[in-house]
Amino acid sequence: MTSIEIFQDKINHALSELPVLGEPAGLYQPIVYALDQGGKRVRPLLTLIANEMFGGKAEKVMPAAIAIEIFHNFTLLHDDVIDQAPLRRGKETIYQKWDLNTAILSGDTMFAIAYGRLSQCEPRLLPKLMEVFTTTAVEVCEGQQYDIDFERSNSITIPAYLNMIRLKTAVLLAASLKIGALSADASADDCEKIYVCGENLGMAFQLQDDLLDAFGETELFGKQTGGDIVANKKTYLYLKTFEQANEADKIQLNNWYSITPGDNSAKVEAVLDLFKKYNAKENTEALIMQYYHKALELIGDISVNDDRKFPLLELAKKILLRKY
Amino acid sequence: MTSIEIFQDKINHALSELPVLGEPAGLYQPIVYALDQGGKRVRPLLTLIANEMFGGKAEKVMPAAIAIEIFHNFTLLHDDVIDQAPLRRGKETIYQKWDLNTAILSGDTMFAIAYGRLSQCEPRLLPKLMEVFTTTAVEVCEGQQYDIDFERSNSITIPAYLNMIRLKTAVLLAASLKIGALSADASADDCEKIYVCGENLGMAFQLQDDLLDAFGETELFGKQTGGDIVANKKTYLYLKTFEQANEADKIQLNNWYSITPGDNSAKVEAVLDLFKKYNAKENTEALIMQYYHKALELIGDISVNDDRKFPLLELAKKILLRKY
Repeated sequence: MTSIEIFQDKINHALSELPVLGEPAGLYQPIVYALDQGGKRVRPLLTLIANEMFGGKAEKVMPAAIAIEIFHNFTLLHDDVIDQAPLRRGKETIYQKWDLNTAILSGDTMFAIAYGRLSQCEPRLLPKLMEVFTTTAVEVCEGQQYDIDFERSNSITIPAYLNMIRLKTAVLLAASLKIGALSADASADDCEKIYVCGENLGMAFQLQDDLLDAFGETELFGKQTGGDIVANKKTYLYLKTFEQANEADKIQLNNWYSITPGDNSAKVEAVLDLFKKYNAKENTEALIMQYYHKALELIGDISVNDDRKFPLLELAKKILLRKY
Repeated sequence: MTSIEIFQDKINHALSELPVLGEPAGLYQPIVYALDQGGKRVRPLLTLIANEMFGGKAEKVMPAAIAIEIFHNFTLLHDDVIDQAPLRRGKETIYQKWDLNTAILSGDTMFAIAYGRLSQCEPRLLPKLMEVFTTTAVEVCEGQQYDIDFERSNSITIPAYLNMIRLKTAVLLAASLKIGALSADASADDCEKIYVCGENLGMAFQLQDDLLDAFGETELFGKQTGGDIVANKKTYLYLKTFEQANEADKIQLNNWYSITPGDNSAKVEAVLDLFKKYNAKENTEALIMQYYHKALELIGDISVNDDRKFPLLELAKKILLRKY
């Protein structure tokens, strides 16, 4: 089986060979910048790994893998506008480095280019791949809309939050695996299993992200810790703390999440103290493990030899243990 | 042959049946609103008309026609953000009625839904249709970027302007015709001819738009006349006037296009006077006729019986004579 590092190199090589150095420069330079920011390439990795698990060849599935990575980066461009985020992976966002219009338009172009890559796949696979890709793209937008809605709402339940991150993050990891499996002609049953496995991994991935946002190290994480608290994002950490807090702490938490002070350091500190008091970190880690074990269970059920499952298991562990 | 009105009804019916009434409402209500704004449905009409010209059936090509219309409306959502436009077809834009984030995100969703519709076409046609659709989508973004670039530039040539409107507007009309032709298995030669015909019609269409923006009636046109002048858009009217103006008038024109006064009425009046002095209207009309005749010539060359060409000729005339 191919190692994660070799697959990552292949992905970065394929991305570097994209014909996106054209005119007008104001449109394409931001795209090159966005795709050159590195990142872990988790999604195309999942595609290549799933594909190889079922006996597929990396060269054949690469266009789909690259389509997914470009799509993912397109969503980041628009998310950064919506969140008014200055930093992404430790570097200036397109929105910050260029402007609003550039982030919108270069993003739109990336979305089109993503479909352009997808259409390079085997014609017989295209209708099915298009269906998965498009359903997922729409769901990701739905998730982002729920995320926006939730910022203004005071009555978010934990299930509603989990559904939001499922749509916003998990389904794309699920689709990445499924597209890899479909491209290697895996059975419908295995495609479904690997999809649900990806959903569970995706949930663990996003909860880990929330955890790192609150408790990670800024330098490793590449963005300011406490960003979700500053932005009043009611993550699982917040919701679980709120659920368990006494009345006085509920009021305090509510108060902090209803203001946006100029200097956020007191707010971040106070909220983190409440998170700690109610074991938000441990509770989130427990939920992450639940999703992780479900994912492992599903990988166990997939009808290929165990040795073929090793790269996916390894990547799953990396996702779980990541510090950034 | 089917009449334009019957095709328009079919298009509106297909649009009304789209499954876009879901949750979250904040994402889908703006989409319903956007697709319900009427408009002339020129692009899907071109698809249906070209398809029928080569013996295709409307039901089969309808998903592609709808994909094009949804894509077009998606671009309007994002264009209205970029132009900060309050009105579109006489009604509030999504950007104005909702907000920036909604215009971005509902737009993105429409782009995905457009591809979703396209993927409903016959599988054997999908790779080819995807290629035309995606190439066109990227070109439309390029055109919009040039449009943005040109607002900040003082050295736009007429050929550069014409290339910009070709990308921003004409290629989508061209692709609409070609997708219709491809779906009816027209020959490569006829597909190419109808594409170039659409490009020429698209140029006439956009120049007519520029003309109406300056000299149209606000009530019919559905947006404020003089909008391009207010926004300092260097249209063909401006460029041709500038080219022909004496030194004093050149300086005047330049001055007006370098300011954005609170009350624009004096500016619009003065610029319109200069346009009139140098026959900008007549010059633009002459160029429109040039493109129109080229389009007619290409229609004449297409290898089907003349009676099959009637609906396209009729629509071309409508585009030319339109007052809104």
